Amino acid sequence: MNIGFIGLGVMGRPMAEHLIKAGHRVSLASRSGVPSNMGDGDVLRCASAAEASADADVIIIMVPDTPDVEAVIFGPAGVIETAKSGSIVVDMSSISPLASKQFAARLGERGIGCLDAPVSGGEVGAKAASLTIMVGGPADLFEHVRPLLELMGRNINRVGEHGAGQTTKVANQIIVALTIEAVSEALVFASRAGADPARVREALLGGFASSRVLEVHGERMIKRNFTPGFRVELHQKDLNLALENARLLGVSLPATALARSLFSACEAHGGGRDDHSSMVRALELLANHEIGQSMAKDAAE
Amino acid sequence: MNIGFIGLGVMGRPMAEHLIKAGHRVSLASRSGVPSNMGDGDVLRCASAAEASADADVIIIMVPDTPDVEAVIFGPAGVIETAKSGSIVVDMSSISPLASKQFAARLGERGIGCLDAPVSGGEVGAKAASLTIMVGGPADLFEHVRPLLELMGRNINRVGEHGAGQTTKVANQIIVALTIEAVSEALVFASRAGADPARVREALLGGFASSRVLEVHGERMIKRNFTPGFRVELHQKDLNLALENARLLGVSLPATALARSLFSACEAHGGGRDDHSSMVRALELLANHEIGQSMAKDAAE
Repeated sequence: MNIGFIGLGVMGRPMAEHLIKAGHRVSLASRSGVPSNMGDGDVLRCASAAEASADADVIIIMVPDTPDVEAVIFGPAGVIETAKSGSIVVDMSSISPLASKQFAARLGERGIGCLDAPVSGGEVGAKAASLTIMVGGPADLFEHVRPLLELMGRNINRVGEHGAGQTTKVANQIIVALTIEAVSEALVFASRAGADPARVREALLGGFASSRVLEVHGERMIKRNFTPGFRVELHQKDLNLALENARLLGVSLPATALARSLFSACEAHGGGRDDHSSMVRALELLANHEIGQSMAKDAAE
Repeated sequence: MNIGFIGLGVMGRPMAEHLIKAGHRVSLASRSGVPSNMGDGDVLRCASAAEASADADVIIIMVPDTPDVEAVIFGPAGVIETAKSGSIVVDMSSISPLASKQFAARLGERGIGCLDAPVSGGEVGAKAASLTIMVGGPADLFEHVRPLLELMGRNINRVGEHGAGQTTKVANQIIVALTIEAVSEALVFASRAGADPARVREALLGGFASSRVLEVHGERMIKRNFTPGFRVELHQKDLNLALENARLLGVSLPATALARSLFSACEAHGGGRDDHSSMVRALELLANHEIGQSMAKDAAE
């Protein structure tokens, strides 16, 4: 299959490499230029999204944000200038669900198919081809590109029509942020009350309070390991998307708004590039108490 | 072992019955009187906590709230009037961690040992002897009563010194409430954005958003099954404990305060006795959109 791949950042590059390795002909384009050492395999180095899309059956986009996707598709030297009728745009960026629906409609007017297919799993998942991929759009298009998605991810679900993939990604980011907040409040409380947060976490795993976040991020909070992982500033971007779309839809997300404020506090203290589990620091700041303090005390006893 | 058991409500009664069945001599007392059909086995029916404690090696208390525990131990005809020096009070009620520490200190002055050992798992867990039991207090006392706890629960952890069991229970209730809020916001958002919340939930299980709450309470929200389970009014009591203790400790719990407000909204609409997963209704009310609506729409398409 002829593939156009646009966006070769920390996520896009390893994803494109999986497609190249599998023997697909891939036309590469990236705003900052195609990396010089991406020449192996059946690769065409292109100067623009338009050039990468000209002969493509499937055009994959992996760029940071909603305006980037709009520019890549509809801007100067964009996908829309050259893409064939019958080709399929697969937008794997994480962007606004409402904008995603609009882009699909505009592409549809030109006979170009579209799927939104955002991912979770981060750089590690991109390299290991183990991404979770949440897909919105017509079922037949999904079946057509599924073999390509399977080269990049493992847990691949079509959730519904256009925008449903992005909506699911937003739901994912809401739940992860708020569960981080849940674990943060519980561990700061427990530590301040004199209990050892590590033993509290142990006792809660296995019960109704158990979650992947309690397991993974809870341990990070206790061990003070805030090396990302997933950065506060990226999660902040996703919560902004959630709240902006919620506003347009008339949905109240009070805890999501609160989580955004706590991430803002992390950023205000220079922690925007730390792991998102560092949300706990904002609560520690308010309580004038760090989880580590009680552990140090316990160790000294 | 001679056991005094005080409090024979929905939780206490099945718990006491496991001890009786195992052949222990149990002296029963309950504010509302000992149920007439609790006569089998080596049972002594007592008129007061003092009477039930007189010959007891271990005195188990299972009553609703902090003032109830205080009354049972220190009030007229209370435990303190008759309990032997060297006996052990095991308070399995869910009460204030700070009060729990004070009660232990006051009992200690009379030579009476104390453990706080609140449970989670509800009526189902009490009947099945599968409760999670979170214990605070001296390790030697814990080892002494562990065989009794094992007759009532399965996941039994000593977390730390006096109060640590109650602190862990509070941490548990914070996490569960806030994870319910996380799943509620995500599913209301997804549904209002036009996605099928059942498929969104499916796609998110297995990723970083996964939790017991997404599994169990998420399904309840989607299926509109709000038969308890665990009642809003009981979880509300636990969040009040959390916030009152947080105030005394100087800890900020903004999302916990928010969850309490949403439970208040459930109560204002007559839902205090519904399952706590019905917190989603408060958000649906704000969004003027019920999760079920989009499902009905999908089914009609």
